[in-house]
Amino acid sequence: MSDPWSLNAQLAADTHTLAALPLCDVRLMDNALYPWLILVPRITGAIEWIDLDTRDSHRLADEIAVVSHALRRTYSPEKLNIATLGNVVSQLHVHVVARFRNDMAWPGPVWGGDFSQPYPPALLSTCIASLRDAILSP
Amino acid sequence: MSDPWSLNAQLAADTHTLAALPLCDVRLMDNALYPWLILVPRITGAIEWIDLDTRDSHRLADEIAVVSHALRRTYSPEKLNIATLGNVVSQLHVHVVARFRNDMAWPGPVWGGDFSQPYPPALLSTCIASLRDAILSP
Repeated sequence: MSDPWSLNAQLAADTHTLAALPLCDVRLMDNALYPWLILVPRITGAIEWIDLDTRDSHRLADEIAVVSHALRRTYSPEKLNIATLGNVVSQLHVHVVARFRNDMAWPGPVWGGDFSQPYPPALLSTCIASLRDAILSP
Repeated sequence: MSDPWSLNAQLAADTHTLAALPLCDVRLMDNALYPWLILVPRITGAIEWIDLDTRDSHRLADEIAVVSHALRRTYSPEKLNIATLGNVVSQLHVHVVARFRNDMAWPGPVWGGDFSQPYPPALLSTCIASLRDAILSP
């Protein structure tokens, strides 16, 4: 019997619980500088996107679309950035980030920079509530 | 009648023609430091992944898988990095990059850094031939 899926400890430490979609847990990165969501497919052992079968690969694309629409409706960003890197944390996870022309890293990527600022508690509650609503009641 | 699709001039300048899949043109980034492919869906006006309808979104996921397998088979990388950013060039395009623990940017992202080295002509021909074969004869 294979081990049950569990969230990588580093991802858990860096993010907050937001919602569960059919394939993925949706988490909010604890960085108030960018609206930044992480999708983590609950598939034990998955590291690369190609570790998913075709059905789950398509579901991942669908769930990326769900959170993309939620970010767009909530924040009206200039651009959405979507990526799966995994050079540091190998458990398959996909970043979906709302980007703005006046954000700290524009037009560069948000990964690899030194720009991070944890959410103040009140703002965190508001963001989680808004995004959860946008994701679960599209 | 909508305009026919054409490749963005900056993408054309930065990359080499490699193959045409049912949805996307596949191009090789002219940077010998990383095996780095770009998928460009031939959909006029598409900027965000969510600009594609569900069928094309799933085809994009399928074609990301095709080039991911081709990169893995050709180079045996430590990790694949997949991203669509578009902060500089807005035409929808997806990066699929083979990453290694000893590459110039590891474990950071390849975007936003200063690491670039055009392919020497002989190496370029070899890479294009190998990757084209891996993509079109999987």
